[in-house]
Amino acid sequence: MKLIRFGESGKEKTGVILNDKKYDTSAFGEDYTEAFFETDGLNRLAAFIEGKNLPEIADGTRLGSPIARPSKIVCIGLNYADHARETNAPLPPEPVIFMKATTAIVGPNDDIVIPKNSVKTDWEVELAVVIGKKASYVDEANAMDYVAGYMLHNDVSEREFQLERNGTWDKGKGCDTFAPLGPFLATPDEIADPHNLRLWLTVNGKIVQDGTTANFIFNLPHLIAYTSQFMTLLPGDIISTGTPAGVGLGMKPPFYLKPGDVVELGIDGLGESKQQVIAYA
Amino acid sequence: MKLIRFGESGKEKTGVILNDKKYDTSAFGEDYTEAFFETDGLNRLAAFIEGKNLPEIADGTRLGSPIARPSKIVCIGLNYADHARETNAPLPPEPVIFMKATTAIVGPNDDIVIPKNSVKTDWEVELAVVIGKKASYVDEANAMDYVAGYMLHNDVSEREFQLERNGTWDKGKGCDTFAPLGPFLATPDEIADPHNLRLWLTVNGKIVQDGTTANFIFNLPHLIAYTSQFMTLLPGDIISTGTPAGVGLGMKPPFYLKPGDVVELGIDGLGESKQQVIAYA
Repeated sequence: MKLIRFGESGKEKTGVILNDKKYDTSAFGEDYTEAFFETDGLNRLAAFIEGKNLPEIADGTRLGSPIARPSKIVCIGLNYADHARETNAPLPPEPVIFMKATTAIVGPNDDIVIPKNSVKTDWEVELAVVIGKKASYVDEANAMDYVAGYMLHNDVSEREFQLERNGTWDKGKGCDTFAPLGPFLATPDEIADPHNLRLWLTVNGKIVQDGTTANFIFNLPHLIAYTSQFMTLLPGDIISTGTPAGVGLGMKPPFYLKPGDVVELGIDGLGESKQQVIAYA
Repeated sequence: MKLIRFGESGKEKTGVILNDKKYDTSAFGEDYTEAFFETDGLNRLAAFIEGKNLPEIADGTRLGSPIARPSKIVCIGLNYADHARETNAPLPPEPVIFMKATTAIVGPNDDIVIPKNSVKTDWEVELAVVIGKKASYVDEANAMDYVAGYMLHNDVSEREFQLERNGTWDKGKGCDTFAPLGPFLATPDEIADPHNLRLWLTVNGKIVQDGTTANFIFNLPHLIAYTSQFMTLLPGDIISTGTPAGVGLGMKPPFYLKPGDVVELGIDGLGESKQQVIAYA
């Protein structure tokens, strides 16, 4: 199943994609929230749409984040060796965890707003995992049972805020619009092998990131089990699994986004997204 | 006004404290959530209780966090010079920001659970500010208009997870039970000067922290304005303003919590809380 949310920002309705067409499931009566995932919403939704004649969604309708605002976005830093090298960071002996303010979430094709006083707004294509049930001290052996699905995520990052402004990385990760999510959430049955997905990103049509999740340093069972040792993951929570090489910080010389730039990104099986970069107004 | 939430964990009802007595306001029909603060809930609640004969809450009833789970807890690190010194950290040239998973929130007198594999669970008495309306790029001059109230917070911290386990501080800050909040939220009219409050903490009856918010490095208008440059603060969001000297990490030799320990803490005008320390079971 592929879940979407569509319509005006902050007032999104729910939908699904079936055979490449988008359908409105708002008659189901529930947003894709923590409560939805917690109460077996995916199976209930599948049963609801079975054989139904759902209204089709008009082409060109804005997409929102595929899921409602979760309790948290946990991000994994430096989970691809090539990206660690390009940022001059040592290979992590265990996963690096940081958090992204959920106020950063926008739709997949919404604008990226360069924050006031930003000089180093950067991109990061990532595979985001959505948690399906409460996860605390989970074992690697059954960690994948906690996955509700996968989404494309651009973990937009302000490098000066993140690295040069005194404090943890969180300062450069949670600015408004810094988490374009989607276009859709794909349930695990849609993705044959999440550890073998190509992911790529272009800036103004030029390919800058082109990696594969086969190059993860820490795989998904490890990341889920590991994170759940430090905090309880709730249904709907996101773990974003790190980015491969090719970010602006790693260019020689470094290169950052400016108003007018266009970022496009994609992951095998998880669709594509496209963001215009604009100045804060 | 002083707001409380009471009853079984996860099913708390709302209440207020009037003349040192606790009253049930669940007839008001709204939890103390983002939507409550966003829609002038404090004034509407004040009007609701005016002249009403509210049911009294039985002594010994468990208190929950005074507010429902917010979108985020932003914490300020090293905001007292004496605490920066004791942890061998340089004085920050601008505020240090990190985030605490909201799944860490518990009631003021709930147990602190030492996480599995923890060897350095520590305490931090803090003044927590609750945001009353959406704050983005706020000026210092009117930053205090964005304050809904104040709460007592124990920013419980696992120092090995925070400082020695590779990554940002977030790993040692968001464990379950690591954010006892309350006993109550006090609205700004209850606190004559938030920059002149004594705050203290004892472990097994022995005073270990005894400071004053007069010693903040960065004051509340600065912290609110500063944080709002990096992320939008939503109604109900928490900024926890840092801790004074006297944490376990700063002792010579360092000293950490163990099962059976009792932590008590308080801030002038914001009441006291008391947590038993227990092992993860």
